[in-house]
Amino acid sequence: MKLTILGCYSATPQVHTNPTAQVLEIKNHTFLIDCGEGTQVELRRNKVKFSRIKHVFISHLHGDHCFGLAGLLSTFNLLSRESDLHIYAPNGLKEVITLQMKLSKSWTSYNLIFHELSSTTSELIFQDDKVEVYTIPLEHRVYTNGFLFKEKLGERKLDMNAVLNAGIDVAYYRKLKQGGDVPNSIGQLVENSKLTKAPNPSKSYAFCSDTAYNESIIPLIQDISVLYHESTFIEKNKDLASSTKHSTAKQAAKIAKKANVGQLILGHYSTRYSGIDAFKLEAETIFSNVELARDGKLFDFNNL
Amino acid sequence: MKLTILGCYSATPQVHTNPTAQVLEIKNHTFLIDCGEGTQVELRRNKVKFSRIKHVFISHLHGDHCFGLAGLLSTFNLLSRESDLHIYAPNGLKEVITLQMKLSKSWTSYNLIFHELSSTTSELIFQDDKVEVYTIPLEHRVYTNGFLFKEKLGERKLDMNAVLNAGIDVAYYRKLKQGGDVPNSIGQLVENSKLTKAPNPSKSYAFCSDTAYNESIIPLIQDISVLYHESTFIEKNKDLASSTKHSTAKQAAKIAKKANVGQLILGHYSTRYSGIDAFKLEAETIFSNVELARDGKLFDFNNL
Repeated sequence: MKLTILGCYSATPQVHTNPTAQVLEIKNHTFLIDCGEGTQVELRRNKVKFSRIKHVFISHLHGDHCFGLAGLLSTFNLLSRESDLHIYAPNGLKEVITLQMKLSKSWTSYNLIFHELSSTTSELIFQDDKVEVYTIPLEHRVYTNGFLFKEKLGERKLDMNAVLNAGIDVAYYRKLKQGGDVPNSIGQLVENSKLTKAPNPSKSYAFCSDTAYNESIIPLIQDISVLYHESTFIEKNKDLASSTKHSTAKQAAKIAKKANVGQLILGHYSTRYSGIDAFKLEAETIFSNVELARDGKLFDFNNL
Repeated sequence: MKLTILGCYSATPQVHTNPTAQVLEIKNHTFLIDCGEGTQVELRRNKVKFSRIKHVFISHLHGDHCFGLAGLLSTFNLLSRESDLHIYAPNGLKEVITLQMKLSKSWTSYNLIFHELSSTTSELIFQDDKVEVYTIPLEHRVYTNGFLFKEKLGERKLDMNAVLNAGIDVAYYRKLKQGGDVPNSIGQLVENSKLTKAPNPSKSYAFCSDTAYNESIIPLIQDISVLYHESTFIEKNKDLASSTKHSTAKQAAKIAKKANVGQLILGHYSTRYSGIDAFKLEAETIFSNVELARDGKLFDFNNL
């Protein structure tokens, strides 16, 4: 599980800072999360293969989270993409994109499948045999969701010494991995726990941007591996955070601590600050494992 | 009169190439022409003051010419812009922008005035006492206009030696500059041409992108100072130019020659070519004064 930050600044793209977009590689998927202006260029700069992206998750319809999508879809078309593209986004984005395509007489060469979101409670919006994705309703000036990406727990692992000693027939290995009890060589049923070990722990990542300080998300992200939580401001501007429904670094850390997450990544910084070190220092007064997102930074969660 | 090329490549933004956008400084105006994705960053990189831009001209609604506009308008808002902004664009763009603003609940702090274009003949779309702007209907896959920017001819210049010798009263200077005959110190009417010199020649610039080879534009751009004409392809790909309603460098040069323009600037290059020198070489076989647009290049027309 790897996360590449394409952009982690708020509001407006500048020469050296990009608006929100990130790529999460989880199991066999390459998920694009948010798509601010310039995302397609940052995908190229970070050498993400366009064809690997089959699912795009858009948190909300402020421009710094979605104005790069129309261009990306258009570029997919120029690249003669054929595979389906799924877009999970608030109600309304489909209408904008469809209108833009209609006006430019540029229909896609691939199936573009919109999953329009409007629920204010958490929903399972994607799953296959290895991964689940849930929405995390956030509190912002417009309808906004975070997203929780969870690896499903894998199969139990065979304890081969125990399995061979008990003379288990190879035909039962599948059932063992799935947790079942199986007969040994003389027909006696052996408990699964004596023959297998627990599966690798599953990892989970939550993307929470943009949002005011909101404790109602805590049950949804309890004990997850990594939380990306917006911190547009630091505490000296907490009034601004409150009035714009954003968070401070300290507030992000409070959420991380209360939810007992493994690691907190901060991002969505206002460009008003000359640097971002203050965000980390502030958050560390509350929660110890804090990392700073930076445009172009790769987080490898396999090392967690 | 100065032209800054913000982007001059076709189709899709890449790490080192930008889609179409340029800034024309003419008399007291800073006109933005087209606004592909990333234009606001290129404006910053080229140190164009955002507040100077009061008029935006959009040729057509393909993404590489307009997908940067929503972000720019949104940034104007964040910068607390107050002055009016006029947008001259094909019918439909107003609907897209309005929908995007509605969905993001982000109305502008300034007046946003759309001048929606749908005429297929040339129109005067802007004028003040010093400048006129006309549309140039182009032939492309969607409704497209080029734009002709013309300085109005200034006033005649006083020949002060002649004026003083003839004893012309200062009260008549204004009339002289406007071309009138005026009385001398003994009441005899003196011809204007004996007292004044011709005004500085007025400069003119035509932006023609995107378009197939189209001789019908020639009367509109006859004898202008500078023509920017798209050359998406070179001759070896002329079939592609024809099928996509674009032009080759040679075709651009033919238009420049037939219209007897002062200078031809080529741009809107396909990113399929490893370099752009071939465009100039090809055009120069037809027309001698050829320049290549490059992202970030400044053309100073005062030196023409």
